[in-house]
Amino acid sequence: MRSRLLFLAAVLLCVVVPALASASDAATAQHADPIAAVVLSLAVILAAAKLGGELATRLGQPPVLGELLAGVLLGNLNLIGFQAVEPLKHAAAIDMLASLGVIILLFEVGLESTVSQMLKVGLSSFAVATVGVIVPFALGWLASAWLLPNASHYVHMFLAATLTATSVGITARVLKDLGFSQTDEARIILGAAVIDDVLGLVVLAVVSALIAAADSGGQVSSLEIGLTLFKAIAFLAGALAIGGSISPRIFSVASLLRARGVLLAMGLTFCFVLSWLASAIGLAPIVGAFAAGLVLDPIHYRDFVDRGEHGLEELLQPISSFLVPVFFVLMGLRTDLSSFLQPGALALAALLTVCAIVGKQACGFAVIGRGIDRLSVGIGMMPRGEVGLIFANIGLTLTVRGERVVSTATYSAVVAMVIATTMLTPPTLKWSLNRRR
Amino acid sequence: MRSRLLFLAAVLLCVVVPALASASDAATAQHADPIAAVVLSLAVILAAAKLGGELATRLGQPPVLGELLAGVLLGNLNLIGFQAVEPLKHAAAIDMLASLGVIILLFEVGLESTVSQMLKVGLSSFAVATVGVIVPFALGWLASAWLLPNASHYVHMFLAATLTATSVGITARVLKDLGFSQTDEARIILGAAVIDDVLGLVVLAVVSALIAAADSGGQVSSLEIGLTLFKAIAFLAGALAIGGSISPRIFSVASLLRARGVLLAMGLTFCFVLSWLASAIGLAPIVGAFAAGLVLDPIHYRDFVDRGEHGLEELLQPISSFLVPVFFVLMGLRTDLSSFLQPGALALAALLTVCAIVGKQACGFAVIGRGIDRLSVGIGMMPRGEVGLIFANIGLTLTVRGERVVSTATYSAVVAMVIATTMLTPPTLKWSLNRRR
Repeated sequence: MRSRLLFLAAVLLCVVVPALASASDAATAQHADPIAAVVLSLAVILAAAKLGGELATRLGQPPVLGELLAGVLLGNLNLIGFQAVEPLKHAAAIDMLASLGVIILLFEVGLESTVSQMLKVGLSSFAVATVGVIVPFALGWLASAWLLPNASHYVHMFLAATLTATSVGITARVLKDLGFSQTDEARIILGAAVIDDVLGLVVLAVVSALIAAADSGGQVSSLEIGLTLFKAIAFLAGALAIGGSISPRIFSVASLLRARGVLLAMGLTFCFVLSWLASAIGLAPIVGAFAAGLVLDPIHYRDFVDRGEHGLEELLQPISSFLVPVFFVLMGLRTDLSSFLQPGALALAALLTVCAIVGKQACGFAVIGRGIDRLSVGIGMMPRGEVGLIFANIGLTLTVRGERVVSTATYSAVVAMVIATTMLTPPTLKWSLNRRR
Repeated sequence: MRSRLLFLAAVLLCVVVPALASASDAATAQHADPIAAVVLSLAVILAAAKLGGELATRLGQPPVLGELLAGVLLGNLNLIGFQAVEPLKHAAAIDMLASLGVIILLFEVGLESTVSQMLKVGLSSFAVATVGVIVPFALGWLASAWLLPNASHYVHMFLAATLTATSVGITARVLKDLGFSQTDEARIILGAAVIDDVLGLVVLAVVSALIAAADSGGQVSSLEIGLTLFKAIAFLAGALAIGGSISPRIFSVASLLRARGVLLAMGLTFCFVLSWLASAIGLAPIVGAFAAGLVLDPIHYRDFVDRGEHGLEELLQPISSFLVPVFFVLMGLRTDLSSFLQPGALALAALLTVCAIVGKQACGFAVIGRGIDRLSVGIGMMPRGEVGLIFANIGLTLTVRGERVVSTATYSAVVAMVIATTMLTPPTLKWSLNRRR
């Protein structure tokens, strides 16, 4: 029975889904209503996500790994005429739904912790994040200088910077899938990932500013660097302090409203406004979504639950199970396996991956306090995911005296490192967490 | 207490939401991450929708009317610097979410009825739809010929065509809000609206073909007209016949999967594939979504519910309460109140509105059988909504010998008629349905 099901799922994944996808490809051009192409892509993505997730579950892996691999499969099956969603017109729509999905995911993950629980592990998170930025940056620079001796130090600087920021999406999902979201390890990792995101963005801003200054022959203002850092810290402190006192009042007024769906609408509005605020001061929107989740506490909307309505987490569940897989399948879709085939890129990719893994393992030693699973913390900080891809994309736009700093082969190596760290995290984190159960 | 709340809601609606919206406007240009502008717009739209819905509910009206008016308010408050979402870059993203919203809404509405229930009222639906296309078309032609004696008969033909298609979204929402979705009246209206959509699209195709032929001096192929009609009928019959036998098997296989969220993913995939199929043969995607809902029966996914999972309707509820208000607020947002100010357009708009209302009231007399509330059926068929707007937009692109068939003033009149019929439906339908309770 089990093998028949596996076979059925494999057949569906390899035949039916690509066939639909190919139909999607062929049909896109001729339709007037752009939503038609979007819904077909969504149908393909959802079906692929569930089949991939099922295969992963049955093989004892977290579903997110199956979703990523389903995306890789969809994106690289050029042989049956399906190109990645990317070049199609509706790609922007799918991309937007994926971005919404990761915002909802970080909001959900934030909801599972409270501010006081985060403060308890705050010092550890800060130490983990700082070590997790410095060590991979140093290792990345050394690796780049060793393998690319003729490249300018801007290349080393850029490659080092791509190794710094943790992508919390994958880890958050694995922790959620395995029911570990409310452990101290999870809070250290998630807190560190948020601080890490802030530090990573500062590193990126500094590197970009240095390269831009070299390009125009000018100087970097240390004021700008300081300002970026200040804005980030002010945002998080402000969100936690002000948000924590405003949020109970908003929800207490909202509970007087009798229209249907008020709690969900208010929760989403709160999450969206904080995401926008984070973006407005130059941070990633997901940082705002996570802060919104942290600030909101079930006590704030207890009036709704008391009169028999569903809680916010329960209401968000169907939305996230619709939108979150779109994000992970799309991440897989964007993976061009052929980038692994360039020999130079492969060596650089392998070394960068090793630096990425080893560099974040150093985080585990920075944990303060006893009884914390340091190995799991190190593994949880491993994936670079979408933050690494954002770095890689920004790298492609940097020039020094009119010449591109990052070559296509170097870019491929960064993408490969991102994929490797992202793919390795679910199985190793699962193994590491269950080791102590 | 009640008046204080009303005041609070009014203040929020008039001050806070536009202020945020204005921030959204100002902020859009400077941000790198496009999702930031999207989430801020969503926050504004959700907050406005809930406040508008609350005001409407407290005034005894269906929430959808409040959502529409909140949109009109947001879109026309030029005085505080907020222009309609339309010209902004992220408008396409919001538009796409609105389109997804109306697809989910029609899927939900379809789920509330079964095929056998629809067949019971099929004859009535068909008679209602046919009368509801012929009478408004004839009245529209007469009105146009009377008020615009110098216009070509292509203008009369176009204006007549805009009066034919019922937009089922508003009526479906009012029926759902008031708990009337499972009555015979609701099924007649929804069935008729589907057939009406098909007939309306045929009328539009024929009128467009006639005008295109006049433009190039050629002839219209009656084969093409026949083909459009045939495809539409074949789709609905095919969806109901084949879908009805395939769907139980798909869900029975799916129930063997153990991954989380399988039922929701399968339901959405089914809905999205049928929406795409409808679009692929030239129908509106919402027709496919409605057909998907009709075909799916709770019995098909009883295995999921038996093992304690939520049913499909319950899972869809949070998604629809997130996306559906986006559609209705956006419809309001697109309403340019200044189009009412042109005197010529106002007279034409008034007469077209009368024809639109009277024409669909004739539908009530076409109902076959006793004990059916004919007045409610006629009122339920009234709104032209998004289908009317699609017609008006297509009209703007038609030319005869290089000259535009539809002037801007005529277009404004059509838009005004669409608004009036759409705005009048919720309160009159509510009155009419409750009259018999």
